[in-house]
Amino acid sequence: MPVGLAGPLRVNGLVAQGDYYVPLATTEAALVASYSRGAQVLSEVGGCTAALLNEGVQRAPGVAFRDLQEAGQFVVWAVSQLDAFRERAESTTRYGKLHDMRLTVEGNHVYLVFEFTTGDAAGQNMVTLATEAICDYITANAPITPQYFFQEANLSGDKKASAQSFLSVRGKKVTAEATLPAKLVSRRLHTTPEQMVNYWRMSAIGGVLSGTIGVQGHYANGLAALCIACGQDAACVAESAVGVTRLEVMEEGALYASVTLPNLIVGTVGGGTGLPSQQACLDILGLAGPGKAQALAEVCAALALAGELSIIGALAAGDFAKAHQRLARGRKE
Amino acid sequence: MPVGLAGPLRVNGLVAQGDYYVPLATTEAALVASYSRGAQVLSEVGGCTAALLNEGVQRAPGVAFRDLQEAGQFVVWAVSQLDAFRERAESTTRYGKLHDMRLTVEGNHVYLVFEFTTGDAAGQNMVTLATEAICDYITANAPITPQYFFQEANLSGDKKASAQSFLSVRGKKVTAEATLPAKLVSRRLHTTPEQMVNYWRMSAIGGVLSGTIGVQGHYANGLAALCIACGQDAACVAESAVGVTRLEVMEEGALYASVTLPNLIVGTVGGGTGLPSQQACLDILGLAGPGKAQALAEVCAALALAGELSIIGALAAGDFAKAHQRLARGRKE
Amino acid sequence: MPVGLAGPLRVNGLVAQGDYYVPLATTEAALVASYSRGAQVLSEVGGCTAALLNEGVQRAPGVAFRDLQEAGQFVVWAVSQLDAFRERAESTTRYGKLHDMRLTVEGNHVYLVFEFTTGDAAGQNMVTLATEAICDYITANAPITPQYFFQEANLSGDKKASAQSFLSVRGKKVTAEATLPAKLVSRRLHTTPEQMVNYWRMSAIGGVLSGTIGVQGHYANGLAALCIACGQDAACVAESAVGVTRLEVMEEGALYASVTLPNLIVGTVGGGTGLPSQQACLDILGLAGPGKAQALAEVCAALALAGELSIIGALAAGDFAKAHQRLARGRKE
Amino acid sequence: MPVGLAGPLRVNGLVAQGDYYVPLATTEAALVASYSRGAQVLSEVGGCTAALLNEGVQRAPGVAFRDLQEAGQFVVWAVSQLDAFRERAESTTRYGKLHDMRLTVEGNHVYLVFEFTTGDAAGQNMVTLATEAICDYITANAPITPQYFFQEANLSGDKKASAQSFLSVRGKKVTAEATLPAKLVSRRLHTTPEQMVNYWRMSAIGGVLSGTIGVQGHYANGLAALCIACGQDAACVAESAVGVTRLEVMEEGALYASVTLPNLIVGTVGGGTGLPSQQACLDILGLAGPGKAQALAEVCAALALAGELSIIGALAAGDFAKAHQRLARGRKE
Repeated sequence: MPVGLAGPLRVNGLVAQGDYYVPLATTEAALVASYSRGAQVLSEVGGCTAALLNEGVQRAPGVAFRDLQEAGQFVVWAVSQLDAFRERAESTTRYGKLHDMRLTVEGNHVYLVFEFTTGDAAGQNMVTLATEAICDYITANAPITPQYFFQEANLSGDKKASAQSFLSVRGKKVTAEATLPAKLVSRRLHTTPEQMVNYWRMSAIGGVLSGTIGVQGHYANGLAALCIACGQDAACVAESAVGVTRLEVMEEGALYASVTLPNLIVGTVGGGTGLPSQQACLDILGLAGPGKAQALAEVCAALALAGELSIIGALAAGDFAKAHQRLARGRKE
Repeated sequence: MPVGLAGPLRVNGLVAQGDYYVPLATTEAALVASYSRGAQVLSEVGGCTAALLNEGVQRAPGVAFRDLQEAGQFVVWAVSQLDAFRERAESTTRYGKLHDMRLTVEGNHVYLVFEFTTGDAAGQNMVTLATEAICDYITANAPITPQYFFQEANLSGDKKASAQSFLSVRGKKVTAEATLPAKLVSRRLHTTPEQMVNYWRMSAIGGVLSGTIGVQGHYANGLAALCIACGQDAACVAESAVGVTRLEVMEEGALYASVTLPNLIVGTVGGGTGLPSQQACLDILGLAGPGKAQALAEVCAALALAGELSIIGALAAGDFAKAHQRLARGRKE
Repeated sequence: MPVGLAGPLRVNGLVAQGDYYVPLATTEAALVASYSRGAQVLSEVGGCTAALLNEGVQRAPGVAFRDLQEAGQFVVWAVSQLDAFRERAESTTRYGKLHDMRLTVEGNHVYLVFEFTTGDAAGQNMVTLATEAICDYITANAPITPQYFFQEANLSGDKKASAQSFLSVRGKKVTAEATLPAKLVSRRLHTTPEQMVNYWRMSAIGGVLSGTIGVQGHYANGLAALCIACGQDAACVAESAVGVTRLEVMEEGALYASVTLPNLIVGTVGGGTGLPSQQACLDILGLAGPGKAQALAEVCAALALAGELSIIGALAAGDFAKAHQRLARGRKE
Repeated sequence: MPVGLAGPLRVNGLVAQGDYYVPLATTEAALVASYSRGAQVLSEVGGCTAALLNEGVQRAPGVAFRDLQEAGQFVVWAVSQLDAFRERAESTTRYGKLHDMRLTVEGNHVYLVFEFTTGDAAGQNMVTLATEAICDYITANAPITPQYFFQEANLSGDKKASAQSFLSVRGKKVTAEATLPAKLVSRRLHTTPEQMVNYWRMSAIGGVLSGTIGVQGHYANGLAALCIACGQDAACVAESAVGVTRLEVMEEGALYASVTLPNLIVGTVGGGTGLPSQQACLDILGLAGPGKAQALAEVCAALALAGELSIIGALAAGDFAKAHQRLARGRKE
């Protein structure tokens, strides 16, 4: 698949600092052009601010008991075993740390949500193995024998957009923002902050009316292209491409824009990151290998912000179809 | 990215008929093995039944008026112009047909949802251009001048999981089902129909508790891998990987399983389908080029069913982490 | 329960025309005061505009078949029987009209959504009986015998907030709007249009982040109080109190505000409307008896708008807790 | 409004113990009959088990800053002030205790979610006043002056069904369960456990397809009627009537049924509970006054379970419309 570079994208993050050229694997030329436009606009104002807000990857075993009373006894026991769970879990991994456990009772069912930090790995396999170790411990030690017991019972949010991600985190929660002078909006996006805010308002309500999770334009385009280029799990686009975009006109007439993504599953070690061309793409970003995953998450947020500015600008300016037409020329429908 | 083949996957569809080997582009070896296992189980019972239920791709312009009264006048006019809209829209495309228009009023805002069939293309660009032609007509002819007007106002569901897809369709709506004798479940999946249904029930409620749209396991894995291999827009995984999985024990003790996906965006012409290796993958399926998109959609549903059976089987049998561990060995976390 | 009157509330609806004093049954004095304030503000600008956009009450039988093939055969048959269904349904009621049928296939299950207009009744019992007649016809005439068949399978949205209501209607879909000069906002609400829009924006995103259906403040307070006073089914608050509130600053500095409620279940005949004090409350509104249900729906939308303006005004002005404190004084916590 | 008694409803709760006759204010005679039937079935098996799982009422102020950097500084400060917040909050109330604070950053916005226990009061006014005291402290002491600041920014879930309630709690989270022998199902509900589970499965998926929060039948009917009778805030039905119902056939052929409601707003002091007839209704339950709110929550869960069993039984037996018809006779539509 062809890989294009979008940028320069200047990011002033807690971790990511500098100008990034973001590799995007896509067959849609217009996509790279659109993200590049947004990235350059951000860079012209000195870059966007970005912040990693929270981290954690979950596995959620489910346990069924004969009745609610047994479920309650199990919950009491499980709460007392957090240290033992942690010890077993962390014996399976050098990097994963169990940092939270939440218990949810539904009738005679108990869901245990284990939340891990996973170092620089996206971490899904890491948390699977760590949770298996906990499950083995539970099987051997629980004072009540469950009717049945599953290592994952779908309360983790794995590979699915879920409302719960906004309340906590799944993977990495990141936010990015920038303020664009009206002149820049006019010169580069051919529209005004007011008109972009009109678009934001109407499209946000469009999202609400259609029953989406979060409200935003098109995070999926950029995230999918980055995931494929950089050895990330592209299936995670189903969960990662969720968030909230917000645009406002500031008192001075400038455009404020932010994105917040609660569920970004990315890593810089493990998975597909070690394959040659994928590693090369991470190298272009300067984000290959250990110690880089948090910066990659902030770059993803910045990329999402660039994409939103560009596409909302195009829609506000009435250029949406024209951009598609011009850049897609030569392709059959 | 490495491409593996999952199969044989026998499909008895309305359109798709035969044994398919499904190209999956993924860095996760376990994924191909898991889908293959599910596909083979389906093939052993003579294949799964599949049906394309509905088709339609939307664009949703939004128009803002001074007040509700103007909005109402516009709605009355727009309803009367359906034929004119159709003529303009269809003048831009050989394959796209405008087959429905829905109007939504929210205060002084009007959303127009245009729904097209798009032949064998996924069709997002096609409907964008066709809708632009409608918008040009509206701009020139509407009896009331809008305050502002956007070609797409986010009520289309584009690139986002949305609750509305279940009520109508976005892209292609497909369903697939199969019934597996208990002996086959035991021999191939190492568990029982009862235990798989126990898993389904608990995980379906897990999905509900976490606030997902639909309830299912992991459509995203297979769909993302197929999209990348076969030149589909991988960003659409954000919307396509939504649906409902259902498992039941039949009276005779066999396992009934079905999947229903309301929002599958796939095509066999246009987009990335013309690139050499992507076309080669479609050729492996026998689904390259015109006249094949409906069959591709049914194959996607069958693939999703295969994946659900395999992963639910693994979770029910307690093999989930073990499969990951065995197949991921040698990879760093 | 004490009943207070909120008003005058001037409504310029398609049907509702005039100044209304809305009976609200509540033990919370602050509630009547707050809605009255909003109503008076609306009246000062000449009233709010309101419009009934759509009507329809659904029942959704569900039918299970042996397999997808049988389900498909049933669907083909059902589509051909619409006239017969209508005849049977309408034989049970003088007022109910079957005006739409939608079919949803999920594996071997078929949901039939019958949508009725119900005259001036809220209509839930009416559509139940009409649908039973259809079900009896299906049982007697369907070419395939279902495995099982339920008169209502939960796709109707009955007594539950559901995302689907935005895409069609349940009960009555109504919208109301008004534009308030900045001076009026200052004089009556002690704040500015800008600050109220700041609140709207932040609270709309708050709603999105918390996973609500629609985005709004507090429709439930007014609707519940009106339902109890006026003999409406108070349980329907669970579904009726859903909608979208939107606030904007207009170019001239005025405040635009609208509410849209897609799922208002109200009636002026049947149910509790015939009880003496409930009928008296409808009489105060001038909306008792036949021919008044559409107007009642528009008044409900106007009331919701009044409530949003008042509470958003209080929150924007920093008066929220103070209003509660002042009006609740003397009550124990 | 007429008040009927449903019962006896035997509850084996953590707190609620005994046989309850539940006052239901409704104009629908069928409703009391239906809940009574369910209650009696539960009592015949020795009562249902019920458990209060969690408690907490939230207020969620929102604060806007110039940029993300200021927002971050505020968050750091706010986290350090939890003790001061608690002291101010608890100075306003004898019963309210601040037991949790969660912070959510969205761009330059910060939402502070304060969670309180509220003794035996439903507590909405209590937490409003307590949060106002915190807000006053923030205004006086925050190291950064916000752009604007609202006492409630809609992340609390107040008066709205929200997905977030499943992940934590709002008000009281309760669950109730029972196991019914097949013979009892046959004798009292005229159907079988298998058929009721068939209904549950189909209706749960119906709920998922329609985009509800949680999956259930009709909690709203009983809760609204109890709220009106017992001086609870009926507007809270909008949020309280959310939950998960689950039915299963146990190995021995019996029917297992449970309900879980995460968001029950009820109290036995304050609000409308002190009015004469409302207090009389609470007295009938034996749940008037201090020390009774937790038991009332468990009784609500038990009531919801009774209602689900009765209505699912009626639908499974094909008696749904007939019950309506018989009991509603004499009423006009």
